[in-house]
Amino acid sequence: MEGVSVASPPERLLLGPGPSPVHTRVLEAQARAMVGHLDPWFLEVTDQIADMLRTVFRTHNQLTYAVSGTGSAGMETAVTNVVEPGDTVIVGVNGVFGGRIADTAQRAGADVVALEEPWGRIVPVERVASAIKAHPGAKLVALVHAETSTGAHQPLEEVGELLRGTDTLFLVDAVTSLAGVPLEVDAWGIDIVYSGTQKCLSVPPGLAPITFSAKAEDVVERRSSTVRSWYLDVSAVRRYWGGERAYHHTAPISALLGLHEGLRMVLEEGLETRWARHAEVGALFQEHVQDRDAELLAQEGHRLPQLTTFALPGDVEEAPLRARLLAEHGIEVGGGLGTFAGRAWRVGLMGEGATHANVDRLLDAVDDLLEG
Amino acid sequence: MEGVSVASPPERLLLGPGPSPVHTRVLEAQARAMVGHLDPWFLEVTDQIADMLRTVFRTHNQLTYAVSGTGSAGMETAVTNVVEPGDTVIVGVNGVFGGRIADTAQRAGADVVALEEPWGRIVPVERVASAIKAHPGAKLVALVHAETSTGAHQPLEEVGELLRGTDTLFLVDAVTSLAGVPLEVDAWGIDIVYSGTQKCLSVPPGLAPITFSAKAEDVVERRSSTVRSWYLDVSAVRRYWGGERAYHHTAPISALLGLHEGLRMVLEEGLETRWARHAEVGALFQEHVQDRDAELLAQEGHRLPQLTTFALPGDVEEAPLRARLLAEHGIEVGGGLGTFAGRAWRVGLMGEGATHANVDRLLDAVDDLLEG
Repeated sequence: MEGVSVASPPERLLLGPGPSPVHTRVLEAQARAMVGHLDPWFLEVTDQIADMLRTVFRTHNQLTYAVSGTGSAGMETAVTNVVEPGDTVIVGVNGVFGGRIADTAQRAGADVVALEEPWGRIVPVERVASAIKAHPGAKLVALVHAETSTGAHQPLEEVGELLRGTDTLFLVDAVTSLAGVPLEVDAWGIDIVYSGTQKCLSVPPGLAPITFSAKAEDVVERRSSTVRSWYLDVSAVRRYWGGERAYHHTAPISALLGLHEGLRMVLEEGLETRWARHAEVGALFQEHVQDRDAELLAQEGHRLPQLTTFALPGDVEEAPLRARLLAEHGIEVGGGLGTFAGRAWRVGLMGEGATHANVDRLLDAVDDLLEG
Repeated sequence: MEGVSVASPPERLLLGPGPSPVHTRVLEAQARAMVGHLDPWFLEVTDQIADMLRTVFRTHNQLTYAVSGTGSAGMETAVTNVVEPGDTVIVGVNGVFGGRIADTAQRAGADVVALEEPWGRIVPVERVASAIKAHPGAKLVALVHAETSTGAHQPLEEVGELLRGTDTLFLVDAVTSLAGVPLEVDAWGIDIVYSGTQKCLSVPPGLAPITFSAKAEDVVERRSSTVRSWYLDVSAVRRYWGGERAYHHTAPISALLGLHEGLRMVLEEGLETRWARHAEVGALFQEHVQDRDAELLAQEGHRLPQLTTFALPGDVEEAPLRARLLAEHGIEVGGGLGTFAGRAWRVGLMGEGATHANVDRLLDAVDDLLEG
């Protein structure tokens, strides 16, 4: 094994479903000197991260932190801490990530009511309303705000309204939506929201921002069974992120310093300006895609600007073209998953990646390859 | 929230129980440009990491990778993937981390047989042998190689010998031992071993190297129930780290680039040279501690060189002295946990930290504070 060379990454423009491009300010923050996870200086940094996350989530929730794992660890934290064996869980399944919530809930012992919709469609509020009526004792309703596998943009506000004042929690996957499109955790009555760092926050993958409402915290406290995960058990983790600062597991210091800098950049730009930038750049790209006779796969009126899925026109084979785009132009885009595999691309214009220049560069490169 | 300042870490010498000091080469690797987790270039990097981990673990196990979480996520991965509800699990509990394995196994549904020993003592092989005899159908025997809460150095080889040819798996916590003291996964017949990056590997916290023997893989394959964690389910994760390279969750790219560089440094030094360096520096420090009438708390003959616990002499209060050591000298050491809380220190001389110069600097600083 002696003689493994330095890993020097090739230059890439990351326009896939994640990770998104990361600013050198954030990368350099990850190279700062190591400190202890219980160092008083570092504990202040974690407080600042929690405060900045509250601003980005638009919440006053006390229990707001970054899970020491990727977005999927956030999903598991969200589900596992509130679900107990035998609970009924209503999940919108219109793509990979809704399916993943359902799987995670089953592993936590839940009876899952899956509201399946064709890929690319949203879950209509009426379907959610009927399910809530049919299962009045449901522990939670889970929806994916931004389905990274389809590009569908799920409306949330009316569902929050339906659940207000009930015992049912509202859980939202905001992995690809946070800081890319409007998300109002408190105003929309959402109880548990998790995200990832490597999408519209433009921070490397490895952490999952999460927030729990007081109602959700109360459900955690009234559990009759132990949470199935030790690592993700929020009752213990919050003693590190909260006032007591007790040791639970060693926090991923460098990744948190990167997130701190990334959040600073989001707030420097301003959340609403950032939403507007994503909206404008994504709409422009989707126009160009349609001009080229490619079919947008997400439902009209419910398309995410930051993540576009489309079927390539005519008889173009997606995988070889995608490989050439990476090899010859250094541009990464994603292939379709599930029912979209083999015919679709997923293009992310997320965080640092959401610029007019990137839209031009991608379109020029693809035009070049198709003509060549 | 506007106006959060850049997080510029104070200068620290990290001589606590972790994180250990990190070389700038490793820190700088974490600042390299972002690439995709399915990028062919990055997949080669993951292959190199797996190969280097095999070298460091002294194993040929195919299923060897880095869990996307800290050492405790490694623990949960190790336990959760093999334990099914109703299984009997024998765990040596002689400190915090044995207790944590027991807790994790219970959450996975196991009946735990805890072999409790006083803090600082090892678990005698005779006790393990009796437990195996009393529970011939046990799913696994778990021991902590390097108890970070006590400094005890658990012998493993004879236990591996006892279990060879049986259906019982041998699971070892090597969080603080890997690359610090000899560990021979294949030669000692260990089936599942997990570690952390922030100890003797001198890489920032955030990843958990892990390895499963063919026997352990077989147990995973023959499970009759689903693994309770989606995120840590090795049957799915190995499709990313193995030949198929299927998407499971987004790998923590920057952290893995840091680990790659850290492993390169370990192999440049040579594993045996690194073990010898830890042994020599730790022994020297422990001599000096005893010269100062402080009591070493780990059992004689079974003391880890890389992690020393000792009771401070006389009526010295540990917490205020430790706070002054950090504030006035920039040196971090750890306080005692559990039964050692309030009277002991934990000093780590791990990875980059295991040098004669650091021993001198620490002793000089403490002498200075006690005389001052």
